[in-house]
Amino acid sequence: MASESVDGNCDAWAARDPSGVLSPYKFSRRAVQSGDVSLKITHCGVCYADVIWTQNRHNDSKYPLVPGHEIAGVVTEVGSDVKGFKVGDHVGVGTYVNSCRDCENCNSSLENHCPKSVYTFNGIDTDGTVTKGGYSTHIVVHERYCFKIPDGYPLAKAAPLLCAGITVYTPMMRHNMNQPGKSLGVIGLGGLGHMAVKFGKAFGLKVTVFSTSESKRDEAINLLGADNFVISSNTQQMESLKNSLHFIVDTASGDHPFDPYLSLLKVGGVMAIVCFPSEINVHPASLNLGARTLSGSIVGGTKDIQEMVNFCAANKIYPEIEIIKIDYINEALTRLVNRDVKYRFVIDIENSFK
Amino acid sequence: MASESVDGNCDAWAARDPSGVLSPYKFSRRAVQSGDVSLKITHCGVCYADVIWTQNRHNDSKYPLVPGHEIAGVVTEVGSDVKGFKVGDHVGVGTYVNSCRDCENCNSSLENHCPKSVYTFNGIDTDGTVTKGGYSTHIVVHERYCFKIPDGYPLAKAAPLLCAGITVYTPMMRHNMNQPGKSLGVIGLGGLGHMAVKFGKAFGLKVTVFSTSESKRDEAINLLGADNFVISSNTQQMESLKNSLHFIVDTASGDHPFDPYLSLLKVGGVMAIVCFPSEINVHPASLNLGARTLSGSIVGGTKDIQEMVNFCAANKIYPEIEIIKIDYINEALTRLVNRDVKYRFVIDIENSFK
Repeated sequence: MASESVDGNCDAWAARDPSGVLSPYKFSRRAVQSGDVSLKITHCGVCYADVIWTQNRHNDSKYPLVPGHEIAGVVTEVGSDVKGFKVGDHVGVGTYVNSCRDCENCNSSLENHCPKSVYTFNGIDTDGTVTKGGYSTHIVVHERYCFKIPDGYPLAKAAPLLCAGITVYTPMMRHNMNQPGKSLGVIGLGGLGHMAVKFGKAFGLKVTVFSTSESKRDEAINLLGADNFVISSNTQQMESLKNSLHFIVDTASGDHPFDPYLSLLKVGGVMAIVCFPSEINVHPASLNLGARTLSGSIVGGTKDIQEMVNFCAANKIYPEIEIIKIDYINEALTRLVNRDVKYRFVIDIENSFK
Repeated sequence: MASESVDGNCDAWAARDPSGVLSPYKFSRRAVQSGDVSLKITHCGVCYADVIWTQNRHNDSKYPLVPGHEIAGVVTEVGSDVKGFKVGDHVGVGTYVNSCRDCENCNSSLENHCPKSVYTFNGIDTDGTVTKGGYSTHIVVHERYCFKIPDGYPLAKAAPLLCAGITVYTPMMRHNMNQPGKSLGVIGLGGLGHMAVKFGKAFGLKVTVFSTSESKRDEAINLLGADNFVISSNTQQMESLKNSLHFIVDTASGDHPFDPYLSLLKVGGVMAIVCFPSEINVHPASLNLGARTLSGSIVGGTKDIQEMVNFCAANKIYPEIEIIKIDYINEALTRLVNRDVKYRFVIDIENSFK
């Protein structure tokens, strides 16, 4: 049970109101229970969700609010029943820290879709407390929601896998995008999009990046390894790609049209969206005439998360990150809103609270 | 080559202008070429497409226009190179009569998606003539676009399989809806919807019909074998089905909302649309939060059509039809527009032109 106290057992930074401004905060995490793992957090990625809830954009924020759901660290204590982890293990925690463990979705390793899943921050845990995220020095979590980071994989780079990585990996695997030689379009080149490019190249796909900004061309090609870069407002380039792609992963955060992208898919092509525009408006012909599919997705289940982390380690897939200290977080969130980050901020928690 | 003449070789009924009124008409079909099959048409189904093009609703109708693309009949002549058919065979012809036979789609038995596919009526064939459909006494077609109707399957019942049947069968198979024990929703109970119910039951699915009209309940359950019937405006019934269906096939012809139906799908559920509303408007959460899929489809390829016909024969799946003579066609089209048909008009061509 987390309780708020000036002399709690966990140092953190919290937002206190919808201004979203974060400042130092102390509270207590629950003691380790039989199935729990406690980890010293070394790093936490900065996700756009942190902006949404620190600023109460969904009108459900519970202050003080400690954000952060891309957590990496080292196990410091395990409960008596814990089977999968031992002290010293490198581990990650993602966007949820609990679920009912007994529904159709939980029983299918789709805990992310459990109606009772508990988000890592600003959620109500089964003990009634409000969950607090990874902008903090340690976290206690049931081992089911904890993932092994293979030895040698840098913890700073592991953090963004737990949300950005799994968010694009899950739909790519569900729609069989791991077919070498096929073609993938990636819309948007932020935290999610750059991971989609990396997974696409690891799967052996020919990757085309669609962006609104010419400034991203060089890194898309030369840093991330994309095969092609298209400015989405260039109708001539878009036209030339009609019916050419097997898959599209749409990570664009703002409102945008869908028909122009759907028309780029081959017959039977799949466009997986991981974005939340205000609405999706599609002409039925865009789907029907090419037997095309539009599919949604949100993070992934526990089995997929571990599989994805292992895949990244085995294939040396590393997110591109900018490491910051916690006292830079307010500037970092402002930069994130302004899309001024390549490609994910990661807070060096371990060295921020010394 | 088809040519128009008062003494042509083919009797038909044609629309002459956007009034869509059909009247007797005579023209000539081409002579049988080496790869062709000629069939005496015994029956032709009446599809909503016949309304659309006789009335020039897409502004591309070429008059005189002979509609009809659900064709069944008997082979009367075959070309010297024809391998698959002989005189006397029962056969069907569907919505297209030609394609390039050399593109990625044709080579994948997806001739329906060939950019050069030629519609059975109102299309421009490779010889430059305007194709004329099944409201006529015979048709000459390359054997690739001709399908065997197994012995014993009534030709009158076979006709609607060639469009209505394949239109719902294709997406149901593509999305693996043939899994006994799973659940299917069917939106709309017309020519397409009633076939989706029949396929669903043959696949061993638990089928729920969604309709706007209480008058369809009895037949949905007792004639077609649906397990459940829901009036879509009944929000309480709709609410009770949330997250309960594996699949939905949407055959509703008019504009309608999509979010309420998507919310009925389980995690990972698929909604296949075969309808053409003016637009599709979806909230991204309807797709993302349940990892749901919205997918389009239009008729099917030649391999799928033969497979579907064989499946219907093997499983004794027969469309529900109302047989008419050609001189009733104008009334029938009006009734079709008013949705006053259970569930498909089929023209008894053989006995209409005697």
